[in-house]
Amino acid sequence: MGSNLYVGLVHHPIYDKRKEVVATAVTSFDIHDIARCARTYGVGGFYIMTPLESQIQLVERIVRHWTEGGGYAYNPTRKEPFSLIRISRSIDEAVREISDQWKRKVETVATGASPHPGNVSFRSLRELLDDQKRPFFILFGTGWGLTEEVKDHSDYVLEPIEGRGYNHLSVRSAVAIILDRLLGRRQM
Amino acid sequence: MGSNLYVGLVHHPIYDKRKEVVATAVTSFDIHDIARCARTYGVGGFYIMTPLESQIQLVERIVRHWTEGGGYAYNPTRKEPFSLIRISRSIDEAVREISDQWKRKVETVATGASPHPGNVSFRSLRELLDDQKRPFFILFGTGWGLTEEVKDHSDYVLEPIEGRGYNHLSVRSAVAIILDRLLGRRQM
Repeated sequence: MGSNLYVGLVHHPIYDKRKEVVATAVTSFDIHDIARCARTYGVGGFYIMTPLESQIQLVERIVRHWTEGGGYAYNPTRKEPFSLIRISRSIDEAVREISDQWKRKVETVATGASPHPGNVSFRSLRELLDDQKRPFFILFGTGWGLTEEVKDHSDYVLEPIEGRGYNHLSVRSAVAIILDRLLGRRQM
Repeated sequence: MGSNLYVGLVHHPIYDKRKEVVATAVTSFDIHDIARCARTYGVGGFYIMTPLESQIQLVERIVRHWTEGGGYAYNPTRKEPFSLIRISRSIDEAVREISDQWKRKVETVATGASPHPGNVSFRSLRELLDDQKRPFFILFGTGWGLTEEVKDHSDYVLEPIEGRGYNHLSVRSAVAIILDRLLGRRQM
């Protein structure tokens, strides 16, 4: 059974270190680590968003390698996570695809390392996810993060992971921690 | 203030996919992601353990690059995490170093993807960590995981992260999730 939470990795629009808006390159470690987390926590799908044709072809090639090609023969445990991967040219395209599937508009949740007015807490989002009839799409930025415009246009912005005076996790670590907080077994 | 929890990334002794005991190669993404998590959650230190001289030199070079060299100029946010890195030739050497520093034997905690007799729960380990006078050293395996011998010789073996019928997280994701469960703010 697919969950009502979808994960999105955004490569455009993204800030670079000078806060200019760019399209970042796809990183193979992001794909592997996030797909494996997505499968571990049973998310509905993992969208990789990039407008660059060469990058789309690269992701398609990587996915084929691990689901059908030599990668599958080498390590069959990657097939299930990689089967969750979808590729979209933009956030809007992914939103339309999920909404069509659910026959209702998917609600978007932006993430980032700094607080944003009207942040939703982990606890509140976890409660929202309990309503299995509503699909949610949580967006993670590569590079130096999602643009303010993406955050402003999202239905929710999730509160940041609080560091001890340091907030520079990799996107791979942030996805792992956030999926565990939202979908992991609660027993502590 | 350094925490009483130390993180260790083990490259030997490690299982490969045929369950033979090997020394794995150091992965640059492991170093970056785990050091950034270690700094985020305020751990006492991050030990990278490998017996291979060439790998030790590689890690030393990477650490220098991000704390003093061109990496620091490019991205100064890596200096603090990389300053937490220590290199040891074996688990025993790291254990001795931490124990000497604390003037009491550090307690080791092995991790892995499958249950082990006498597993300690996340909740129990979190409570143990509250006693700030006792140092703990949590060990993560690369490759296909820590050997049974390492687990049997550890003071504790932590319960695995429960996946939905899938338990193949990357070591980078496992470290992120486990540090968040042990040291993250609890509010949910």
